[in-house]
Amino acid sequence: MRVLGIDPGSRITGYGIVEQQGNRLVHVDNGAIFTDSAADFPGRLKRIFDGLCSVIAQYRPDEVAVENIFFSTNAQSALKLGQARGAAIVAAVHAGLPVAEYTALQVKQAVVGQGRAEKSQVQKMLKALLGLPEIAQADASDALAVAVCHINSFALKQMTGSAKPTSRKPTSWRDMKL
Amino acid sequence: MRVLGIDPGSRITGYGIVEQQGNRLVHVDNGAIFTDSAADFPGRLKRIFDGLCSVIAQYRPDEVAVENIFFSTNAQSALKLGQARGAAIVAAVHAGLPVAEYTALQVKQAVVGQGRAEKSQVQKMLKALLGLPEIAQADASDALAVAVCHINSFALKQMTGSAKPTSRKPTSWRDMKL
Repeated sequence: MRVLGIDPGSRITGYGIVEQQGNRLVHVDNGAIFTDSAADFPGRLKRIFDGLCSVIAQYRPDEVAVENIFFSTNAQSALKLGQARGAAIVAAVHAGLPVAEYTALQVKQAVVGQGRAEKSQVQKMLKALLGLPEIAQADASDALAVAVCHINSFALKQMTGSAKPTSRKPTSWRDMKL
Repeated sequence: MRVLGIDPGSRITGYGIVEQQGNRLVHVDNGAIFTDSAADFPGRLKRIFDGLCSVIAQYRPDEVAVENIFFSTNAQSALKLGQARGAAIVAAVHAGLPVAEYTALQVKQAVVGQGRAEKSQVQKMLKALLGLPEIAQADASDALAVAVCHINSFALKQMTGSAKPTSRKPTSWRDMKL
């Protein structure tokens, strides 16, 4: 299974492609789509949509995972982020791909094993898990993290029949309880 | 010039198509895209995107106008609205159409002649302006209003050389000052 993780943002949208090969996680690619902050907002949404359509056409993922956001500093920034998120999700559904959403807590739990991990811990763990030569750009790293979360959640579902994504350590007792 | 006005919403997205024929405003069609609130959010965004792609394919507008929102009751509803708005705008830019944004104040000013008009006044004025048999559904009516705003703004730009959209009455002194 090949998963495209997306971390949408009106300024920078990160993406990361991770493949599950047996029990192994294989890093395929990651990167970020930068929009011109001087451009009009519809033009920036087009850049996000077109950029992700290209990524999807190039890497042909089976599924897409996006981090779900439950709060924001203010309504205005939430509206901006929402539009970027809408453009990103539409790129996926337009290609006929299923889209899963995970909370930041679920993503951290899946990658590091606990939901209150620091961002730097997540980045280091991803580097190790995926054998990256260096820590990925921040937004691309978040995108890789949600892709890994989706793969682990999928693997866990297969093992337990549960639909609830959780920690990446299937050997710990907490996972076996599901 | 044929304009598609859109009033995006995660539950109901209104659309209205208005054509300028000489000095006349001609109503072409209006309607609303309803999403299933029981469906997953990516599926609802797909419905908005696909629905508007169909409307664009059927009516082939030259330009698109969307009301700009500057505030919202809270960040969570702003995020939802933002995603619907992102899906709607991407449907337009994906079809290669330019998208203009107007504030509620500009829309009311364009349709009724003053920015603090009641919603019901806007609806009645639209019915009269466009010769509608009855007042359109609320969201479709908002979409028609922003389309009319865009056409008037465009007409005014041609008359004055100004890029700033304003009142629909090009004979008043306030417009001539632009």
